[in-house]
Amino acid sequence: MDVEKVRAETPGCAEVVHLNNAGAALQPAAVLDAVVGHLTLEASIGGYEAYEQNAAAIGRFYDAVAALLGAAPDEIAYVENATRAWDMAFYSVPFAAGDRILTTASEYSSNAIAYRQVARARDVRVDVVPDDAHGQISLEALAAELGRGGVRLVSLNHVPTQNGLVNPAAEVGRLCREAGALFLLDACQSVGQLPVDVGEIGCDMLSATGRKFLRGPRGTGFLYVRRDVLRTLEPPFLDLQAADWQAPDAYEMRDDARRFETWERFVAGQIGLGVAVDYATALGLRAIEERVTSLAARLRADLAERPGVTVLDRGERMSGIVTFTVAGRDPGEIKLALRERDVNVSVTTPRQHGYDLDAAPAAVRASVHYYNTEAELERLVTAL
Amino acid sequence: MDVEKVRAETPGCAEVVHLNNAGAALQPAAVLDAVVGHLTLEASIGGYEAYEQNAAAIGRFYDAVAALLGAAPDEIAYVENATRAWDMAFYSVPFAAGDRILTTASEYSSNAIAYRQVARARDVRVDVVPDDAHGQISLEALAAELGRGGVRLVSLNHVPTQNGLVNPAAEVGRLCREAGALFLLDACQSVGQLPVDVGEIGCDMLSATGRKFLRGPRGTGFLYVRRDVLRTLEPPFLDLQAADWQAPDAYEMRDDARRFETWERFVAGQIGLGVAVDYATALGLRAIEERVTSLAARLRADLAERPGVTVLDRGERMSGIVTFTVAGRDPGEIKLALRERDVNVSVTTPRQHGYDLDAAPAAVRASVHYYNTEAELERLVTAL
Repeated sequence: MDVEKVRAETPGCAEVVHLNNAGAALQPAAVLDAVVGHLTLEASIGGYEAYEQNAAAIGRFYDAVAALLGAAPDEIAYVENATRAWDMAFYSVPFAAGDRILTTASEYSSNAIAYRQVARARDVRVDVVPDDAHGQISLEALAAELGRGGVRLVSLNHVPTQNGLVNPAAEVGRLCREAGALFLLDACQSVGQLPVDVGEIGCDMLSATGRKFLRGPRGTGFLYVRRDVLRTLEPPFLDLQAADWQAPDAYEMRDDARRFETWERFVAGQIGLGVAVDYATALGLRAIEERVTSLAARLRADLAERPGVTVLDRGERMSGIVTFTVAGRDPGEIKLALRERDVNVSVTTPRQHGYDLDAAPAAVRASVHYYNTEAELERLVTAL
Repeated sequence: MDVEKVRAETPGCAEVVHLNNAGAALQPAAVLDAVVGHLTLEASIGGYEAYEQNAAAIGRFYDAVAALLGAAPDEIAYVENATRAWDMAFYSVPFAAGDRILTTASEYSSNAIAYRQVARARDVRVDVVPDDAHGQISLEALAAELGRGGVRLVSLNHVPTQNGLVNPAAEVGRLCREAGALFLLDACQSVGQLPVDVGEIGCDMLSATGRKFLRGPRGTGFLYVRRDVLRTLEPPFLDLQAADWQAPDAYEMRDDARRFETWERFVAGQIGLGVAVDYATALGLRAIEERVTSLAARLRADLAERPGVTVLDRGERMSGIVTFTVAGRDPGEIKLALRERDVNVSVTTPRQHGYDLDAAPAAVRASVHYYNTEAELERLVTAL
């Protein structure tokens, strides 16, 4: 990878040491230009008229995301963000009383709130599959839970937000297929930093965001739903694009993934996300993962050598997310102090992963991307 | 109103005759600048870091919308678009089997699909209140339907998308209060073109969009929920901002309208919408309505004089939306021919208002705003 080139194409690299890529990454200039270009056209000739003029760029989004995931374009929906993409999938599952949902101890609390809401409203049971010795979802425990029967849905995060691991999604997919359970993968932290192929993983639904490792605009996301599954799912909200009105009082849903969309949207963001996805694909997700993983490993090693620093990451396969604490220092205070030195990190708190009762208190999260450099990692470690 | 000034502040006025304001209006330069400014900052220092730096401008949105509506800032939620704002309100109503929903014949089909979905899922009945002789919702018929009992929700559009009228929202509000029914107002076509005061109207919930008469960005909208009502409503989706996770398996919802929000969003759009709202408020909604109404009346009169043109608008009180047909000409073809002359209009079809079985076939929709001029209206009429 030509790191100097990608940095030159990223305006923010001249301004900050950005190690908050798991929050929102720095956009390539091409993404910002595409978004601003469409917004300017909207202001110039009108929002609907700009849509018609840029229809090809807007449509490119579906092809770009499909190519990224190994899916078909009609299995992709543009959704406002990963949360709503995940919601549209999760709340469309036809749970019956007594059904079980399996998830993991590392689950993001936002999803856990949704499980609790559905559990109460539809008399569904949520079981948390324990971690294995490495901190990933235990495949042995998952197989045992699936064997007990009644599982309608397995809902897994691919890369947890608060530690450095990558969950074994493809192995989970195999177990789900054998058991006949639906498999929803929350890929908001994995897409863009490593190859994610829905065929290899075997998930039925996958939600993701634009703003994180894909380097797209804020307020963009997407949902993949496998073609033969989507026809069995009724989205919780339907508008006049998602379904067609049939007088006097019926409607018919679209037969592609756009049944999960809203017609009105941040159109410029859709174009920008398509550009971001094409940018990632052109670099190559294998190359991206290799660089991200090696930078993160280097950072963990450097941090571990510093007195008082504890690296918290778990997992056999690691991601670009590095979490650590510094003895006697508050993570929020570290974040602010680093920000004053133009080094961006974030803070992760136990509130964000409510099932993980053994979790450490708040930690600093430094998440690397391929445009980061070894010199930038040194700046972080030195600043600490 | 200083029309020359507002035109000079609107880049698109130099490019097109924009009579598609009920689709998406032309933005003031200040709105575009605010959106692009924040997007550029995000690309420069990071999305989360830009959020922290621009927190005041982001927070201004709530105050601006509250002032526009005569509401309190904690009764306002930023939602991705009017459809989702309406959905978040509608699907949070705790319908019980046997409850009734009252709506109007002019209802937008997208909302009608939602009624149908809930009717089927929760055994709720939907009754369409007939129009009065002017085409507005019949207050007499509404009072009679409310008198029959069992009405959980009255759901009304303030300004229908497909004809020129303004529904008598405040009178509907009075009847709802007397009957103890919830009142949801779809204000997506009214906010920004006429004064909308939630106290005067007496609605419990109000949904609106940024892109139409408010002249804000696409992909933005908001929801108002009255404070004492919102505490009785559980949103259909909850994330970690809308609710707080409480171990081991409970959550507590926020006690303000942000329980209807998603944390992740088109942040730059939120800032831009706040600027657009302040821009409208500074001009004054009474002055805006006066000019919009007079331009629309002028256009209807000019159109009615042309041979073969039929103006379709109904209503005692009229809006800025003008709909018409031309004998022997297809509305879609008219739209395209006008577009080639840089005149923007749209087409409304019966599919968009599924309860209105007497509706005309497709029609041309020319929707005016205060920045339009008499000369522009002449260009449309002449071009026909």
